[in-house]
Amino acid sequence: MALIVQKFGGSSVANADRVRNVARIITETYRKGHNVVVVLSAQGDTTDDLIEKAKELNPHASKREMDMLLATGEQISISLCAMAIEAMGYQVVSLTGWQAGMHTDAAHSNARIKRIQTERIQTELDKKKIVLVAGFQGINQYGDITTLGRGGSDTSAVALAAALHADLCQIYTDVDGVYTADPRNVTGARKLEEITFDEMLELASLGAQVLHNRSVEMAKRYNVNLEVLSSFTGNPGTKVKEVVKSMEKTHVSGVAKDKDVARIALIGLADEPGIAFKIFSLLAKHKINVDIILQSIGRDSSKDISFTVARGDAEEAKRILEENQQYIGFQSVELSTHVAKVSIVGAGMINNPGVACKMFEALSSASININMISTSEIKVSVLVDERDADRAVQAIHDRFFSEFGGNN
Amino acid sequence: MALIVQKFGGSSVANADRVRNVARIITETYRKGHNVVVVLSAQGDTTDDLIEKAKELNPHASKREMDMLLATGEQISISLCAMAIEAMGYQVVSLTGWQAGMHTDAAHSNARIKRIQTERIQTELDKKKIVLVAGFQGINQYGDITTLGRGGSDTSAVALAAALHADLCQIYTDVDGVYTADPRNVTGARKLEEITFDEMLELASLGAQVLHNRSVEMAKRYNVNLEVLSSFTGNPGTKVKEVVKSMEKTHVSGVAKDKDVARIALIGLADEPGIAFKIFSLLAKHKINVDIILQSIGRDSSKDISFTVARGDAEEAKRILEENQQYIGFQSVELSTHVAKVSIVGAGMINNPGVACKMFEALSSASININMISTSEIKVSVLVDERDADRAVQAIHDRFFSEFGGNN
Repeated sequence: MALIVQKFGGSSVANADRVRNVARIITETYRKGHNVVVVLSAQGDTTDDLIEKAKELNPHASKREMDMLLATGEQISISLCAMAIEAMGYQVVSLTGWQAGMHTDAAHSNARIKRIQTERIQTELDKKKIVLVAGFQGINQYGDITTLGRGGSDTSAVALAAALHADLCQIYTDVDGVYTADPRNVTGARKLEEITFDEMLELASLGAQVLHNRSVEMAKRYNVNLEVLSSFTGNPGTKVKEVVKSMEKTHVSGVAKDKDVARIALIGLADEPGIAFKIFSLLAKHKINVDIILQSIGRDSSKDISFTVARGDAEEAKRILEENQQYIGFQSVELSTHVAKVSIVGAGMINNPGVACKMFEALSSASININMISTSEIKVSVLVDERDADRAVQAIHDRFFSEFGGNN
Repeated sequence: MALIVQKFGGSSVANADRVRNVARIITETYRKGHNVVVVLSAQGDTTDDLIEKAKELNPHASKREMDMLLATGEQISISLCAMAIEAMGYQVVSLTGWQAGMHTDAAHSNARIKRIQTERIQTELDKKKIVLVAGFQGINQYGDITTLGRGGSDTSAVALAAALHADLCQIYTDVDGVYTADPRNVTGARKLEEITFDEMLELASLGAQVLHNRSVEMAKRYNVNLEVLSSFTGNPGTKVKEVVKSMEKTHVSGVAKDKDVARIALIGLADEPGIAFKIFSLLAKHKINVDIILQSIGRDSSKDISFTVARGDAEEAKRILEENQQYIGFQSVELSTHVAKVSIVGAGMINNPGVACKMFEALSSASININMISTSEIKVSVLVDERDADRAVQAIHDRFFSEFGGNN
């Protein structure tokens, strides 16, 4: 007998039939003799509908009142799902965030979980009840309802799994696991049986959004066994762990593409110390995150610096730099939004220096020009022309994963 | 400066425009320098929509989970209304039932308020905030959400007014006060400036449903100054008090009609003691409430007993009596559903024996036959043929209230 935390997202409980389906998955787990704690999101478009209602009355509503409003979405989900489970003849109880003891800080709309008082949940589990908990919400020290922000229900589930020392935390979603590349775009994309926390974090930050990074970071910190699987197919999902079986022959776990990227180039900078600091501290002051940075080798006592930012920040970054042209000292600034970042991720690549080389070879064979390169211990990213992005992913994926593509 | 509790029903907050209208009424009261605590119901059809969702999943859902579901309706109302008030530039805070300290017993779906911990509300009032409280809901000793049943938000408002020692409790609804008769059916119906708690209770029990009896009973017990008024018109409403000004020349405060009534007659009972007890204890055991009772004078050592019940109970009452024909001992039972009860209510009539007489005279002049008569200290009810009911109300109203109708 194990303690299993299951989390179902909004699309998994979008209507009565899907709620019944979720109730079936929950009760099947319970029937196997496990203790089951379930975290639910708001149904389908409920949260968006509530936001719409709020905007009609006040486009700048306080975050406290928005949290008060939005928290009803998950409360509706848990009570409806509890009713579906009751109808199947099982003992069940639904708990809001505050009833489940989810104590957070006071940062409305983006609160952090501080501690979980598990007494109530434990009491209900001792009574052999299935426990349903409203995701995404908690209570602060003033007794006010808070919400956890984006990916909040995943975070609720992982935090509960950590606090309850659960044996497994299953995140049910509308995809049935983590793939070597986006299966909608890349032929031959394969589902991974296992992946490490670090790989998962890199993949998520590269745009392959299956689990929110915050929940993966928390799972890594508390060593929670995660599994990502589909509430629709019943197939086995992908397990996310600290260390995966060394048996796995793949060094690279996935290929990801990120189009939300723009490149800014500063031309004709003085080739002297402190220039980079001036540029990036200026951008940091304006909360603009910089990703890949490339500095040309100096010639004629001048140099160039290029870097990437999120597309939404590009125009502002350019404006800030132009306003500070005197202070920084450059000839011109160029902005290109027709670029995309393509990356390979894999814990195995640390010990395999040939991996990056193989990636470049794949791109070269496909006649795709590389703009910029960035590497970390478990990731290699390249910046390519936006029009080449899909071909680049396919070429790299073929090279590493297709049966004829080499001995990765 | 006074402390005023205001309550707005579901139709008063049904959409964004109406929420804004309610926000205007609240802030106008606040601007006059008063402390304002507001109780809100769920928007328009929200509660019905939620019940529909629940039925789809489980027609026999537990009351605990129904309460968990339905309590979201008022939480949505208070947060949206708070946003509307914020948009007008005022300090406001919304509180759920449990945040407002509404402690109830554990009778889910029909809980009774046990005590109100007013600390949180008091703290917010001290900060000069407008306080919005979710009506209809509370929390029980187990930390579970309860709802108060029919008329629950009125009860929340009156209970809060009592606990906070409010100077006034204003119940905003879609009618602008209490009338001498239903203004939709009776020409010349007038709005009352004042009415006593007892008259209000009698009127409500006679089908003139403006305030739920439970809230009026509570207002009477704690001597809460009530006012019923419309959120749409801005007209002055009707004040409900312990004693009304003796200046009022009207002895009768209203005429009401109740069609939800059926008459049962037991013919040929033995004229001996204990028969009435047998009949009415039997019906009480089956939770059937009996209203007017009439016993014929015995002749030939037999007598008849007639009484009225709610129409929904009539068939069951007849069946129960028939099953116990031997035990009770009667010849036949007759059921008539084509009857209606017409009543006059007024605290002044105790000291005016001529009032009932005037009522009978009005009916006689209109050639309306009286079936049964029942009187209490502040009420006279007659049972008439259903087809005569509207004419009866008009005739009585004309007699007591029209300018040419006498010197009442």
